[in-house]
Amino acid sequence: MNITFKAIGIVHSPLKKLEDIQPKKYADAQGFDSVQGELEIFKEYEDGLKDTEGFSHLIVLFSFHKSEGFRLHTRPLLDDTLRGVFSTRSPHRPNPIGLTIVKVIERKGNILKVAGVDMIEGTPILDIKPYTPRDQKSPIKSGWLEDKIK
Amino acid sequence: MNITFKAIGIVHSPLKKLEDIQPKKYADAQGFDSVQGELEIFKEYEDGLKDTEGFSHLIVLFSFHKSEGFRLHTRPLLDDTLRGVFSTRSPHRPNPIGLTIVKVIERKGNILKVAGVDMIEGTPILDIKPYTPRDQKSPIKSGWLEDKIK
Repeated sequence: MNITFKAIGIVHSPLKKLEDIQPKKYADAQGFDSVQGELEIFKEYEDGLKDTEGFSHLIVLFSFHKSEGFRLHTRPLLDDTLRGVFSTRSPHRPNPIGLTIVKVIERKGNILKVAGVDMIEGTPILDIKPYTPRDQKSPIKSGWLEDKIK
Repeated sequence: MNITFKAIGIVHSPLKKLEDIQPKKYADAQGFDSVQGELEIFKEYEDGLKDTEGFSHLIVLFSFHKSEGFRLHTRPLLDDTLRGVFSTRSPHRPNPIGLTIVKVIERKGNILKVAGVDMIEGTPILDIKPYTPRDQKSPIKSGWLEDKIK
């Protein structure tokens, strides 16, 4: 069964290409907090952004559009052991969907100015969701990642 | 631009149909914590589950397969005001992708037993990602939802 989605917008980012992403920033939960960018939602979907500015954080789903193919075992940026892809945030996954939680700075019409951007310029946006108390999990256990993060 | 994804598995849930979901449970951040179910990942992707059991929580992306069409302004289950769809978790969205963070109970081969299930039986799974410290945001502001939740 195939499921077809379409871009609802595009990311504008100071990270212009994959090489602009510093892997070591992923070792710090706040590593990308200072990276600001814009989520440009296409005009036809602008009305759907109403009320988003009331939330401090939004979940952005996007397409890993530069990713080709996938590996079920993958070596994460922060590790030198092969890990199951579903225990990593690798872009090389069976369905190359990315997820980043960003902080809202402001909304101007169809543009959300946000912080915490780790997507590259031109990334197609699939969905935006509010980050809610249901998404705050604590305490958590982070498996192989536990001793890689500060 | 259309982007095509495929199911990598299927949710097994005590919630057999949409009517089995009690909307008021969404008013409580722990409302679904006691609902257990299974994520059955198709055999061909089983190897990708390696290491997932080291994480206490996983992010599940799934298809809102019962959802038809979308509205940019929608009345949330917990509110009586029309809200922008991207400020809600409504299934009726331009790209009907759902997101739920579940707690891992155990893994047996291609089956993850989890808690916190709010998906119905037969929901197609698109992706599984580890929930990491980068996903723990606090403090947060929850806009219109603020005074609807306990």
